[in-house]
Amino acid sequence: MFEKPRGTRDFDTKEMQKRRYVEESMRSTFQRFGYREVQTPVFENLDLFTMKSGEEIIEELYAFKDKGGRELALRPELTAPVIRFYVNRLQMEPKPLKLFYFGNCFRYDRPQKGRYREFWQIGCELIGPSSPEALAELVALAYFSLKNTGLRNTVLRIGHVGWLNEELQVVENAVGDSLSDCVDTSVSDWEKHVFRLIDKEDFDAVEDELEQVGADEASIKRFMAFLDCDSLAELEEFVSSSQLNEYKRVFEFLRVFGVDEAAVSMKIARGLEYYSGLVFEIDAPALGAEKQVCGGGEYALVPLFGGSEIATSGFAIGFDRTVLALETEGFSFPEETVDAYVVPVTDDVVEEALKVVSDLRVAGALVDVDLMRRGVGKSLKHADSLGCRKVILVGPEELKEDAVTIRDMRSGEQTKVKTRDIIYFI
Amino acid sequence: MFEKPRGTRDFDTKEMQKRRYVEESMRSTFQRFGYREVQTPVFENLDLFTMKSGEEIIEELYAFKDKGGRELALRPELTAPVIRFYVNRLQMEPKPLKLFYFGNCFRYDRPQKGRYREFWQIGCELIGPSSPEALAELVALAYFSLKNTGLRNTVLRIGHVGWLNEELQVVENAVGDSLSDCVDTSVSDWEKHVFRLIDKEDFDAVEDELEQVGADEASIKRFMAFLDCDSLAELEEFVSSSQLNEYKRVFEFLRVFGVDEAAVSMKIARGLEYYSGLVFEIDAPALGAEKQVCGGGEYALVPLFGGSEIATSGFAIGFDRTVLALETEGFSFPEETVDAYVVPVTDDVVEEALKVVSDLRVAGALVDVDLMRRGVGKSLKHADSLGCRKVILVGPEELKEDAVTIRDMRSGEQTKVKTRDIIYFI
Repeated sequence: MFEKPRGTRDFDTKEMQKRRYVEESMRSTFQRFGYREVQTPVFENLDLFTMKSGEEIIEELYAFKDKGGRELALRPELTAPVIRFYVNRLQMEPKPLKLFYFGNCFRYDRPQKGRYREFWQIGCELIGPSSPEALAELVALAYFSLKNTGLRNTVLRIGHVGWLNEELQVVENAVGDSLSDCVDTSVSDWEKHVFRLIDKEDFDAVEDELEQVGADEASIKRFMAFLDCDSLAELEEFVSSSQLNEYKRVFEFLRVFGVDEAAVSMKIARGLEYYSGLVFEIDAPALGAEKQVCGGGEYALVPLFGGSEIATSGFAIGFDRTVLALETEGFSFPEETVDAYVVPVTDDVVEEALKVVSDLRVAGALVDVDLMRRGVGKSLKHADSLGCRKVILVGPEELKEDAVTIRDMRSGEQTKVKTRDIIYFI
Repeated sequence: MFEKPRGTRDFDTKEMQKRRYVEESMRSTFQRFGYREVQTPVFENLDLFTMKSGEEIIEELYAFKDKGGRELALRPELTAPVIRFYVNRLQMEPKPLKLFYFGNCFRYDRPQKGRYREFWQIGCELIGPSSPEALAELVALAYFSLKNTGLRNTVLRIGHVGWLNEELQVVENAVGDSLSDCVDTSVSDWEKHVFRLIDKEDFDAVEDELEQVGADEASIKRFMAFLDCDSLAELEEFVSSSQLNEYKRVFEFLRVFGVDEAAVSMKIARGLEYYSGLVFEIDAPALGAEKQVCGGGEYALVPLFGGSEIATSGFAIGFDRTVLALETEGFSFPEETVDAYVVPVTDDVVEEALKVVSDLRVAGALVDVDLMRRGVGKSLKHADSLGCRKVILVGPEELKEDAVTIRDMRSGEQTKVKTRDIIYFI
C-alpha cells in the first residue's frame, strides 16, 4: 500500500466542504473590499526566497534542481511570489492594486500537531497607498475575513516594527562601538535574535541580552517600558506627535469600519528583514499555544526585487488554523445536502428513472440516483447516509399512470406524484 | 529582476476571474450529479506514479529527494493520488463513491504553445458501480461540465480499450511465437507502441507495424476494419452480443441524459496500462491541433495500489485548455463589477466617507474607496477603470445636510441622496 508523503494531508469530502466554506467566505469578504485574485506558480526560483528571508531559509525549504540545473523551491509563503509578479508585469496597472491569493505553501520542518509540510495561506497585498485609511481598511479586512467565517473569539493587536527598531537603535547607540565586540556574530544578526526573543515573548531573555552587550540600566528600562506600551497615550513618550497622529487615525478609522477591539502592542516583532512600519497580528485563543491566525503590516519588498519604490502592505491568514479554530469553537459548518435520491424499483425502469434524474438536474436540483441496482431497502439506507431529504421511487406500476412515489425521509410519508409535477415536491 | 520559472504562468486578476468562473461552473455541475470534492498533496512518493505508468514516466516528472532521502515527485495527474487516498482511507465508505478534484499538475517537458510545466486538471472518479447507467452518467457529467461553462463546439467519442486490446491479441495469435523475435523490445512494449500510433491517428504506421511483425493480410484487414468501426451495427462483427448490448445501453442512457452527439470510435487508445473497458474523449475543435479537453473511461488501479478489487471509472478535464477553448470561441465571461466607488472630496471628510463604505459593505455591496486622496477627477478615472457603475462623492457641504452626491458613471447624471438612503441607489 502506498502512503501519502510524511507531513502532508489528504482531505475527504467532509473536510473539503468545511474548507470550501471558509475559502468562499473569505473570498467574498475580500471581493466586497475591492480585492481581486491573482495566482502564481507553486515553485519559484530559489533565490527569490533567500533574497527576501536570507540564506538560512533554505533549511526550511523544499529546494530542488530541475533538469536544466536551475535551483527551484516550493513556495514557503505567497508574498514574495505576488510581489515578484507585480514587479514583472503589474507595475503599470492603475493604483491602488488590491490583490488577494489563496494557495498551498511548503515548509520542511518536523511535522507536529497543527504544523504540516503542506499548508494553505490566504491573504492580501495592497500596493500603492499608505494613508491611515488604507492601513485601517487593510486591518479591518483581515479582521472581518476571519469574523465573517463565524469565528467568535479573536484578539487583534497592532504594533509598529519601525518604532521597535528605532528603540533598539537607541540602546545600541548607548552601548556604542563596543557592541560589535560583544555580539557573537554581526550586529544585524544580533538584532534579528532580539526580535525573535520578543516574538517568542521571552522578555527576561531580552533583558539579559541587553545587559550582556553592556547596555546601561536606563537604556534597558526605557526599552522594556517601550515594549510594555499598550495604549496610544503611553506611546507619546517615545514617538513623535506627527507619527503618532497618523497611527491614532488608523485606530479611529478602524472604529468607523466597526473594529472595536484593536489593541496597541509594541511586542509585535515580525521579520525585521522586510516589515517596515505598522504591523498587526490576530490570534484565535481557541487554538491554545499556536494561536496566531493572521499576521501582516507595512513592508518593503518591491525595490529588493528590482521594482520602483512604492508603498506596500498586506497580511496572510493561516487557512488551516482558521478551519481548526472554527472546529474548536464548535462552529456548525453548513452541510451539503442532496435534494433527492432516485431509485429505479426494477431493472426495466432504469431508463425512466434516469429521465427523472436528468430533468431535475436540468432544473438545477442536486439529485443522485442508484447506479448499483441494489433494490429499494439498500437504496433508502444509502440515501439516508447521503443526508437526502426526499427519495423518488420509480416503479413500473406507477409509471403506467405517469407517476412516481416520493418518500419524505424525515417523516417516512409517501406520496404518489405525476412525473411532470415532481419538481414542485423537491 | 526575478523571473517566474520557465514553463510556468502567473495569472492576473482578469485571467483569474475567467478561471474561477469556469471552475465554479464545473463544480456546480459536479455537485448537481452528486459528486463531492477531495484533495491530495501536491507531491507524492515517486513510486506511486512509476507503479501506475511505468519507469519511463520519470523522464517527465519533477522528481526530487527530500532531506530524509525519500524520492518524491510533483504529481503529473490526479487519478493515482485520489485512488491512493481511496485505498488508504476510503475503502469502507458507502458505495458508490463519487469524488471530484481540482488541482495543479506538473510535467517536465519542453514548454510550447498551450503546454505548460504547471497545468490544471479537474475531474471525477466513480468508485463502485459499473452498470451502463453508471457509465452513461459519468460520460454525461464530463459532457455537461464542459457544455455548462458555455463551450459551444464539442466532439464526444466513445470507444472500448478492452475490445481494442482483444483485437490486437487476435493479430498477435495469428503471428504466433515468432512475434517476440520480430519486436525490438518486449511484446508488451510493442503493444504500447501500437497503441501510441493509434492514439496519434497514424494508421499507415499501424499497418506497417503489423506487416513488419509478419501478420497476414486477413488479420491486418480485420484489425484495420475494427479500428474503422464508427457505429454500433459495425461492431456486431467483432463483439459478443451480450457485451455489445451493455455498450448500446450506455448510448441509450446518454440520450436520456440529453447527450445526443455521442459517436462510436474504436480509435481511442488510452493508456493500456490501466484503462480496461469503455473509454471516451471530448474534443473542443476550436483549439485546432491540440484539441482534446477531456479523457476518461473504466480503469483498474485499486488492486495495483493494494486495495480490494472494485469497479472504477473517471475522467479528467484539461482546465487550461477549456478556458482557452472558451476564449477562442469568443465566449463572454461574466465580469466582476464594483457596485460603488466612494470618494472623499476633501481630506477632512475621510472618516465620513469610510462610514459610508463600511455601511454598504455590511449590507453586502462590493464597494471600493479612494485610499490615495487624489481628488475627484483622478478618482472618477480610477472608478471608471474598475468598471464602477456608481460613484459616491462625500463632500463637506452635502454632509451638513446628511447627504452625499451619487454619480451614475454611464449617464454622468448626479443625484443628491440622504446618507441613510444610499443603499437604495446602489
